[in-house]
Amino acid sequence: MKGVMLGIAPNVRFVDLTHGISAQDVGAAAFWLTRSAPYFPVGTVHLVVVDPTVGTRRRAIAARAFDQYFVGPDNGVLALPSAPDERVVAVELDVATASRTFHGRDVFAPAAAKLASGTPIDGLGPRIANWSTRGVTPSELGELEIVGRVETVDHFGNLLTNIELPPGAVVKEVHCQGHVLPWGRTYADVEKGKALALLNSWGLVELAVCCGSAASVVGAGPGEEVAVHLAPGQRR
Amino acid sequence: MKGVMLGIAPNVRFVDLTHGISAQDVGAAAFWLTRSAPYFPVGTVHLVVVDPTVGTRRRAIAARAFDQYFVGPDNGVLALPSAPDERVVAVELDVATASRTFHGRDVFAPAAAKLASGTPIDGLGPRIANWSTRGVTPSELGELEIVGRVETVDHFGNLLTNIELPPGAVVKEVHCQGHVLPWGRTYADVEKGKALALLNSWGLVELAVCCGSAASVVGAGPGEEVAVHLAPGQRR
Amino acid sequence: MKGVMLGIAPNVRFVDLTHGISAQDVGAAAFWLTRSAPYFPVGTVHLVVVDPTVGTRRRAIAARAFDQYFVGPDNGVLALPSAPDERVVAVELDVATASRTFHGRDVFAPAAAKLASGTPIDGLGPRIANWSTRGVTPSELGELEIVGRVETVDHFGNLLTNIELPPGAVVKEVHCQGHVLPWGRTYADVEKGKALALLNSWGLVELAVCCGSAASVVGAGPGEEVAVHLAPGQRR
Repeated sequence: MKGVMLGIAPNVRFVDLTHGISAQDVGAAAFWLTRSAPYFPVGTVHLVVVDPTVGTRRRAIAARAFDQYFVGPDNGVLALPSAPDERVVAVELDVATASRTFHGRDVFAPAAAKLASGTPIDGLGPRIANWSTRGVTPSELGELEIVGRVETVDHFGNLLTNIELPPGAVVKEVHCQGHVLPWGRTYADVEKGKALALLNSWGLVELAVCCGSAASVVGAGPGEEVAVHLAPGQRR
Repeated sequence: MKGVMLGIAPNVRFVDLTHGISAQDVGAAAFWLTRSAPYFPVGTVHLVVVDPTVGTRRRAIAARAFDQYFVGPDNGVLALPSAPDERVVAVELDVATASRTFHGRDVFAPAAAKLASGTPIDGLGPRIANWSTRGVTPSELGELEIVGRVETVDHFGNLLTNIELPPGAVVKEVHCQGHVLPWGRTYADVEKGKALALLNSWGLVELAVCCGSAASVVGAGPGEEVAVHLAPGQRR
Repeated sequence: MKGVMLGIAPNVRFVDLTHGISAQDVGAAAFWLTRSAPYFPVGTVHLVVVDPTVGTRRRAIAARAFDQYFVGPDNGVLALPSAPDERVVAVELDVATASRTFHGRDVFAPAAAKLASGTPIDGLGPRIANWSTRGVTPSELGELEIVGRVETVDHFGNLLTNIELPPGAVVKEVHCQGHVLPWGRTYADVEKGKALALLNSWGLVELAVCCGSAASVVGAGPGEEVAVHLAPGQRR
């Protein structure tokens, strides 16, 4: 893919965001892209190839959204906002001459390189009015409890959830898989090997183990239910 | 190695083709280099360090072949054509002052950086007339069957063979390790977890499992025999 | 982190030294940084985030040392010389507005990008007079024996020790975990699968297995004692 891109855009600069997404894990890829893209400069082209249905009728697309570009399969991995959104322009890419097993090399890399070298989005194909988005179940906000789930596991074994805290919320403790985790501010707030929950650097509730793996210690993975217990009388 | 190269060629651009080759697997490295190099621009310098016999009498070499450059140990990993070939110029690199365990840093990186910054190939050492090539056993083409083998396994667990199909061939099914795999066009032509065979993006027969690992499901790895059964009356 | 840096220093060039350090292994990170930094050009900014105590009172620092820069947590990972050393200028970075779990993104990346784009070290914070260093236990040099330990294991399974040889020393054999390893010059000096010890490309005694893993065959890892037996009458 990089060879193809260098042939089209000799001065393109590559950043490998991650090679750590498990095979076919569209959800994890969308999660990390969503969290990382805002930290990249205006004009960045994000190229994603987590593409288990390559070669089927799923579309190949490119989009301009929020002053950045996104190129990949139309399977939700690009983490675009639900249509319609006037800040998003999306087009369908032609796959007629591509292999049926590697659109990364044959479709997405050329499109990304063209965007990086100045081709306008409309030069890549006809506009489309909708695109796939992943059905994220938002966490449920009760009076004294927020129930969500583990979204993904990072390479330390930290369990990242979909739970954001409402303003002023004071957390008492966090429940997951029968474990009751104390609330902390950073990983080393507990002893080595002990579990805690905290608000991570993306503003999400995260379960962690000091110098260890929460995935192992808590015995949980993506989809596992997490309940955040709030202290009464603190909200608002 | 990159530090050494930046000291010699401050404007060199690095592309890491793969860090996923298993230790000492010269065959897998040669396979992927052969498949990837043609997608890179003219003038690209390919530097390969899969080098189990570093420090022995095996030579260190550099070559210009097909408007690109190749630098590494003379153990077949550079996937050069069999000598003599007038499109290939190869030279031997001096290892006299190098460590005996890391020619990547001490020999190949300096040579690659010099090529990248314009030193002609003959400036790196005396010409040599031959070099190692890997003895690839071509697949056997019968009337209704092509017999080949698994060349390598990719990180999805797909089994990539050395079998190309003759023009007009129609595949009935593919046999491997007692499994009979249907022929398909792309990974999602079968249900999740089911195996199939297809022609991959390099024009080779590949065994795959939809959203899974053919290496696990079929129970095969490099060297395993694969037989492609053709439909009668279709060829030529 | 790279997105943040590109926003500050659009022309910065990234080299990923390694993503293979085990979680929280400050010692391995310091070992490889120490061995690799001298091969990089003058002015290189080394950014290290092996940071198990992020968010605690451990300081975030940047330093100029030996014409290069080092940015990271003050936990010994930066492998700076013991203070005071007139060739080292170190400053403390402000963490007041940072998340408590990801100083790599919020503190170290901005500081490194500023250094890469020309901000002087004193523009990053107030000078500090001391910093953490790792208490490396030097190997013990006896008359006919040097006793040291395994510092780290590389991805081949080679065991790298802290043992350097005195000038003129002739090694008889090396002992570790009840194994007696012959002394060699390079990996292929023994048969495949056999263990040996040698002087590696950093001038350290290393235990290796030809086309295999010394970590598995010898059954050792970081901290394991290693004894180098010298031939009598050869030194000095």
